[in-house]
Amino acid sequence: MKLIQSRDNAFFKQLKRLAESGRERRKAGQTLLDGLHLVEAWETHRAPVEQLVVAESALAGGEIAAYVGQRDCTVLADSLMRELGIVETPSGLLAIVETPVPAASPDVHADAVLLDGVQDPGNLGSLIRTAAAAGVRQILLSPGCAAAWSPKVLRAGQGAHFVVNVHEELDLEHFMTVYCGVTVVTCLADSTSLFDVSLDGPLAWVFGAEGTGVRPALVEIAARRVRIPMPGAVESLNVGAAAAVCLFEMVRRRNVMPAEGQGAGIS
Amino acid sequence: MKLIQSRDNAFFKQLKRLAESGRERRKAGQTLLDGLHLVEAWETHRAPVEQLVVAESALAGGEIAAYVGQRDCTVLADSLMRELGIVETPSGLLAIVETPVPAASPDVHADAVLLDGVQDPGNLGSLIRTAAAAGVRQILLSPGCAAAWSPKVLRAGQGAHFVVNVHEELDLEHFMTVYCGVTVVTCLADSTSLFDVSLDGPLAWVFGAEGTGVRPALVEIAARRVRIPMPGAVESLNVGAAAAVCLFEMVRRRNVMPAEGQGAGIS
Repeated sequence: MKLIQSRDNAFFKQLKRLAESGRERRKAGQTLLDGLHLVEAWETHRAPVEQLVVAESALAGGEIAAYVGQRDCTVLADSLMRELGIVETPSGLLAIVETPVPAASPDVHADAVLLDGVQDPGNLGSLIRTAAAAGVRQILLSPGCAAAWSPKVLRAGQGAHFVVNVHEELDLEHFMTVYCGVTVVTCLADSTSLFDVSLDGPLAWVFGAEGTGVRPALVEIAARRVRIPMPGAVESLNVGAAAAVCLFEMVRRRNVMPAEGQGAGIS
Repeated sequence: MKLIQSRDNAFFKQLKRLAESGRERRKAGQTLLDGLHLVEAWETHRAPVEQLVVAESALAGGEIAAYVGQRDCTVLADSLMRELGIVETPSGLLAIVETPVPAASPDVHADAVLLDGVQDPGNLGSLIRTAAAAGVRQILLSPGCAAAWSPKVLRAGQGAHFVVNVHEELDLEHFMTVYCGVTVVTCLADSTSLFDVSLDGPLAWVFGAEGTGVRPALVEIAARRVRIPMPGAVESLNVGAAAAVCLFEMVRRRNVMPAEGQGAGIS
């Protein structure tokens, strides 16, 4: 266990670069997990964490101290931990981990969520979490999306990153063209109600950036266009809310509709 | 039209206080709307805006300049507009408006969304937007929630605030006790699948803070406890995503189920 109190320390300087710069994280092939929940999720789904960084005060007691126990870790003075500025309220525990790379190319036969230009880190993390909860195992991101493995997106994902394959900088148009299931895009024009459209799978859902929505070129080639009926005086949803409605309508149908010889429908 | 270039200007100082301090906004009974979308939504649903503030560069052309036209406004040097720091990317247009107060007490016969301790401004705004889109007209906030009329929550709400009644600092336990419809809480223990539970209305949905969830005292008195079935390896959703799934399941049922003599069911 080593205590760092100086901002001139080489390890601290490298940690700060990792915290602040996406380019640095890509160069190092590493990212930072903030908080016990994320660190434990990583260890459950991926591998033991090799590099732990703990704020001095967090070692005094509580769940982080209990987790760290006798493990090897680097201790940072609290002021240095705050200076990293990774998230608004740092938990006091960080892990440095190797950024995962997807095992293989995206699967053109499995369910997928495609995100087009989603730049807000909180939205992106929440979308990955929602997709994972709905049982979708691959998330495909266009070049315009936020970096999926940044500490802020990881925090919003709450560990969902570790149970799915996240493909970044992907050509969504190409994937949609070769996809063997049904591509579905949410849009207003020429669309069918989500509640009336066939959702027999596999499905590739395409959700777009707030404001601009899905690029016309992608809307053009989608097999189905759906809209979420909104009885209120507000005409659109946050992209995370819209995706949740769509993906859990898929979950509901698969729960209640007789599927491929199972026939356990309750409706 | 008046140009302000000095941070010592009295109007700028008051604007900065309104931007930074919830206490100041309460004292003045005013709040700030950032961006053309919010300002136009206010004028559509509420009243003409009396005090407009525009960044100098935004007057050079584009949609804000077109909107402002010949209207009376105060112009701020761009550096001053940035210094207000209301949202991460200021639009260049602000309106100062009177903070609305709900017309009356909450309606115990109508649908409602109750939020218990939702502190994140983005989540709170998005929840108000989702509720409004689903046709719910009243949102009730516990004392632990973020201030609904803060500029950040307004921005995330995208104008939804203006078409609903937002009741702040409300005793949710009391409301649930006197509510004449069915109170529904999302939780894991002793709960029924959202897709199997009766959702005959009126309904008062209770959603809780991330992490801690709805307080046990409220779970205890809810008429129904529901859970969202999650087939994936992730066991929870962001509160905004969970609320979207629940509220639009209600919308779907009302769309497809024969309701009170209408009988226009498609299922």
